[in-house]
This record gives sequence, C-alpha cells and structure tokens, in this order.
Amino acid sequence: MNICTYSYEEYVHLVKSFHGTLAPGLLIGGFMVDLAMKNLPEGEFFDAVCETPVCLPDAVQILTPCTVGNGWLSVVPFGKFAVTLYEKYAGEGVRVYLDTKKLDGWPEIRDWYLKKKKKQDQDSEKLFSQIKEAGHGLFGLQRVRVEADKVRRNKMGAVAVCPQCGEAYPTRDGQKCLGCQGGSPYKDILPVSAGA
Amino acid sequence: MNICTYSYEEYVHLVKSFHGTLAPGLLIGGFMVDLAMKNLPEGEFFDAVCETPVCLPDAVQILTPCTVGNGWLSVVPFGKFAVTLYEKYAGEGVRVYLDTKKLDGWPEIRDWYLKKKKKQDQDSEKLFSQIKEAGHGLFGLQRVRVEADKVRRNKMGAVAVCPQCGEAYPTRDGQKCLGCQGGSPYKDILPVSAGA
Repeated sequence: MNICTYSYEEYVHLVKSFHGTLAPGLLIGGFMVDLAMKNLPEGEFFDAVCETPVCLPDAVQILTPCTVGNGWLSVVPFGKFAVTLYEKYAGEGVRVYLDTKKLDGWPEIRDWYLKKKKKQDQDSEKLFSQIKEAGHGLFGLQRVRVEADKVRRNKMGAVAVCPQCGEAYPTRDGQKCLGCQGGSPYKDILPVSAGA
Repeated sequence: MNICTYSYEEYVHLVKSFHGTLAPGLLIGGFMVDLAMKNLPEGEFFDAVCETPVCLPDAVQILTPCTVGNGWLSVVPFGKFAVTLYEKYAGEGVRVYLDTKKLDGWPEIRDWYLKKKKKQDQDSEKLFSQIKEAGHGLFGLQRVRVEADKVRRNKMGAVAVCPQCGEAYPTRDGQKCLGCQGGSPYKDILPVSAGA
C-alpha cells in the first residue's frame, strides 16, 4: 500500500531521514495523511492541523507542503492522534482520527496506543507489521469546517527593539520582550565572539 | 559560503522543497543554524529551541536532526529571531540571535526585518544578495544554560477514552478531552465513510 506518492518502503526511508527513528506514530501518521489527501474537499490550497505535537506533525511535514515554519501547519495541544487538512479560505476540511473502536482487531497497536503494555513488553516487529497491515483500517473520517483563527498563529504585527536585551520583538507583547519579562528559559548567559 | 554540509545553492534548493518558498527568514535562519553548529559545546546529543514559529523552525528541521514531531525542537512564542542548540542532559548551549546593532551595514535587511518598508517597496534581489553577503555578520552569539523543563513538551502520561467523542486523550487534561471541553476549532462535524 502506498503512502501518498511514495511506496511504503520509500516513506519508511524518509521517516528515518527526517524524524531520526522509525516511530510507530509516524507510520500510522503517514497512513492518516494519505487517507486525508484522498478525501480532500474541493480547493487548491490546504492548511493542516495536528492535534498533538507528538510524531504526527512530522508525517504532515514530510508528505504535504505544510510545515511549522511556513505556518500552514498548526499544532493544537489536545494530545489526540488526529489530523485535519482544510481549504485555507473557506475552512472546509477532512479530519482523520484514530478510531479506538477499531483497535481491537489490532491488539499490538491497541496496547501500544492505549499504553496497556510497558515498552519492554511490546513486540516491535508485531507492532510494525500490524500497522502496515491495518493501513487505513484504524481510522475514522469526518467532514469539518475549521475556524482557522482558532488554530493559526497570530500575525507578528509591529516590531520594536527591546530596551533590555536590544533584540527585536513584537510590540504586542508589551514594553519589553517576553524573554525579558521573565519567560526566558536561559541561565548563565555569556556573550562570546563568533568562532566561525 | 556553505550552510552546514550544504553549498548555499543546495540549501536554497532544500528550502524551496521543504518550506515551499524562498523566504528571507529561512536563508538567514540557515546561516544562524550553521553558526550555532560551528560553536557547539561538548556533547553528543543536542536539542534545539526556536524563539519564533516563523520560518526559523524549518531551518532547524532541514539542517539538524531536531524536528517538532520528535520533540528535539521546541518553539517558544517570544517572536524573537533566535535559535539555541543545547546539550540535552546538562543544558549547556549556544544561542545565536539577530543582532539589531549589526543591521545598519545591511539596510535592505534592516528595513525588511524591522518592517520599515512595505512589502511592495522592498527590493527582493537586493535583500537576498545582502543576506548571502552578510552570512554570519548579522548575528550575536551567547553561551547559555537551557532549563529544558521550561521548553520541552510534557510527557503524554496516562491515556483514556474520552466519554464524549470516544477518542483517546491524556487523562491529565481532565474528565474529557480538551476538544470536548470547548477547545475544538471545528464546526459542522459530519462523519463519513472512508473514500479510499
């Protein structure tokens, strides 16, 4: 069974190259994106929503023109294994989700997905072969209309130079940048001159 | 000037293929990641932080093993053009940022970055040639220690089946999934049978 324009083996190769490891979620995600692509509503330009940051965004980034950096892929933190492709202007879309009612036919996938087995008790070979065999058989499909303003990132808006760090930031964040307002995840900051 | 293991032209090709368009931010981002890679602290495994979702995450995803889906790339919403690569256990890292003090030598980049010119008044050719010429010359470099728990996504934890939608979700979110708690960006949901 193909995944979009790739053979299963070609997709596996792309996953290893982009994602680093052959994660079960990325194989399932490949089939999900494939099913969504085969059920697109009419339209020319499609944006994507992933309902988890885990694995699934990479399937979208490998298989569609939508990426995090170009803003056509939005990630919403629902922790749900579901992906939606939608026409970017009217919002008409198709949502593919992992249907828990269909998992009983694939016990190794079920136990992995619902965390019924510890990692060391999982049978990887069986898991991967069930994923390949199941293909689209794990999924449910819905037509949806996406309220794009709820998922798309905000426009950057006006920028200014932060009076504290001297870097540019969006003025919508206030008198100084969010890092200097206490959000910085950095400690022990030490300026250095470039080494190359 | 090369960008990591690629020639400038090879990188441009990768950007067009992955990101869809040759965005100025992605070319600058390529040089930023290159500079960070050339100034890595000691260590074997590095995670990444981007301080904006705009463009920069795609430079990281093209040039490093870190992606959104594998969790090695975190995006923090500071709207700042800065990237940090850090050793994943101790947090020792290198942060590369766009140094506003260095922009005056590159007026077309300055006016684009600080939004001093409307898009139709920008000279794209001049902008791209200044970016290529400037290379690392736009950046500042800092040693930092990253507090990884402030940037990394939370572990999924236990999962359950949502009593409302029937899909799996992380139990840390409460009695039902965040979508069914009112966060859903979808309207007019209509189940359909798979068409392929």
